[in-house]
Amino acid sequence: MTSLHGRAVQLTRYPDGAITPECFEVVDVEVPSPRAGQVVVRNSWTSVDPGLLLRMSARAPAGYFAAFPLGRPLDGILTIGEVLESRHEGFDVGDTVWHASGWRELSVVDADVEQLGGLGTLTKLDVSESEPQWYLGPLGGMGLTAYAGLHVVAALRGGDTVWVSAGAGAVGSLAAQIARNVGNTVLVSTGSPHKVAWLREELGFDLAMDYRARPLRDSLAELAPSGLDVYFDSVGGDHLEAALDAMRRGGRIALCGSISEYQTDPRGPGNLFLAVSKELTLRGFRGSGNLGLLPEVRRRLGGWLRAGSLVWRETVFDGLANAPLALGEMAAGRTIGKTLVRL
Amino acid sequence: MTSLHGRAVQLTRYPDGAITPECFEVVDVEVPSPRAGQVVVRNSWTSVDPGLLLRMSARAPAGYFAAFPLGRPLDGILTIGEVLESRHEGFDVGDTVWHASGWRELSVVDADVEQLGGLGTLTKLDVSESEPQWYLGPLGGMGLTAYAGLHVVAALRGGDTVWVSAGAGAVGSLAAQIARNVGNTVLVSTGSPHKVAWLREELGFDLAMDYRARPLRDSLAELAPSGLDVYFDSVGGDHLEAALDAMRRGGRIALCGSISEYQTDPRGPGNLFLAVSKELTLRGFRGSGNLGLLPEVRRRLGGWLRAGSLVWRETVFDGLANAPLALGEMAAGRTIGKTLVRL
Repeated sequence: MTSLHGRAVQLTRYPDGAITPECFEVVDVEVPSPRAGQVVVRNSWTSVDPGLLLRMSARAPAGYFAAFPLGRPLDGILTIGEVLESRHEGFDVGDTVWHASGWRELSVVDADVEQLGGLGTLTKLDVSESEPQWYLGPLGGMGLTAYAGLHVVAALRGGDTVWVSAGAGAVGSLAAQIARNVGNTVLVSTGSPHKVAWLREELGFDLAMDYRARPLRDSLAELAPSGLDVYFDSVGGDHLEAALDAMRRGGRIALCGSISEYQTDPRGPGNLFLAVSKELTLRGFRGSGNLGLLPEVRRRLGGWLRAGSLVWRETVFDGLANAPLALGEMAAGRTIGKTLVRL
Repeated sequence: MTSLHGRAVQLTRYPDGAITPECFEVVDVEVPSPRAGQVVVRNSWTSVDPGLLLRMSARAPAGYFAAFPLGRPLDGILTIGEVLESRHEGFDVGDTVWHASGWRELSVVDADVEQLGGLGTLTKLDVSESEPQWYLGPLGGMGLTAYAGLHVVAALRGGDTVWVSAGAGAVGSLAAQIARNVGNTVLVSTGSPHKVAWLREELGFDLAMDYRARPLRDSLAELAPSGLDVYFDSVGGDHLEAALDAMRRGGRIALCGSISEYQTDPRGPGNLFLAVSKELTLRGFRGSGNLGLLPEVRRRLGGWLRAGSLVWRETVFDGLANAPLALGEMAAGRTIGKTLVRL
């Protein structure tokens, strides 16, 4: 029997600033035969997330996932595929699954080992009513992160004025629509006229701001003159500072990420004292810390998707070799919705 | 009838950096006869708080109390005194009261006007079992701030490892002792060997750190090797950064103040992303936002004071003219416990 081979993307060095293809190489890897308890998966979709940027550095932040190794396949990236061979009784050939051994064509996965805080552990997926790649979006970590941020962290009450940053991104576009669907006034921000147009015309957000075209403070003052109750932060930096200025007394900030600072030396918000004077709560969270909500997320977001009250957009790059390009385009703000690689 | 006269302290200009006497003047003010609903108070103790520094600037932070005016008596400073003349049925001559018209010898106070979010509204005090100036400390805003920060904000559970900064200050020394009295392991920090000695020997805190003598990160790593559950922040700046590094997953930070940055341009914590990766909560609060807790604070802290399980220290300056000196000494970290001026 000839052995299986598949391509994989590896880092050759950590990017210094922008993500460029020279930091990566595509290698051909021999896929070992599965041992007992393992499953071989032919991957069909692999994920491109802002969080990957944080792991492409020798100084990945404490408490987060570890830095990617150099010269080895990148472990810990969510991926969808079909089971090709199974040596675990819970999985059959042909099953659609997710797992965390992404950015490669074939993966050998230990079925019972927890990955990515539970969000990447090998799991069989129901694709009878859903596209498989939705599990990398609204029915998976993205949906869970958006939902948990709004419901658990920011204690959304209905009637709140909510600002969602990175509103044209995967988590942001979900968070903004969820907040609106449960009865809040929602402002969204993004960084290009093209994405503002998408937010206005496709998602119906009249209160969409282009932070590159006009200072956020001015836009916020105009669109939310009474201030914000909730800010959903995926950007950090100047966005977080503008939010602190605009929050009403007792406001709540869900700290989801700070993509503006993943490729630079972060500086903190200089106006953090406003948290004291206005009695604000800032709460950091991660989707994986709210796994118990996942069934509720799938039920509600799945229902909205099928009913057409939740728009889900993907920017798809074809072929594994384009994964670094996809990441660079996402980091530069040139993708809309969820960035995916189709294998 | 000759009219009443009393001295008052005014600002002549806003301090640029350190608090120096040249920014203040002591003036003789004619005290008007009280109108209906007003009370004349002969003040006996007036308060010196870190928060006053924030108000001695043309750019007082939004949501906080307004900047002090120049060339007029400083309104909005907590003070204890005795009623000299009353035109309000709720107050009799000789009553001990608190009010918010401090840094002067005689005050005419509107009895029914809310001051300082309720904490400075003219209020009759029970001094049968308490020293009157305790109402500027454990039985007033200081006690309420310490108690609320720990109980409401940081959700102290018992068994937590808690770091209280500015541990030799009024709020800090109370917060540290409250946290210990309800069953937590408490680290305290301060900025001189003299204050460390007081924390160790008088308050019994073995885990006391001098942040000027040794980097906080090193002290925290040694004294709390498993990390912190709660940080009570009155300092901001490098203290908050060190806490973010040392927090355990799910940790809680009570943001009470940031005295290290009241006289400089604040810079935010550069490692705030750790709030995301470690799922931390940072919550700003003010004593006045928790007025409903005041009876409980007086009952519990008053009980501990009388039982000797709460040490309360005052640094007293005599005479109104020394109020600016008292403030400067407090800002420079050269006072212990509550800084007061006795009139």
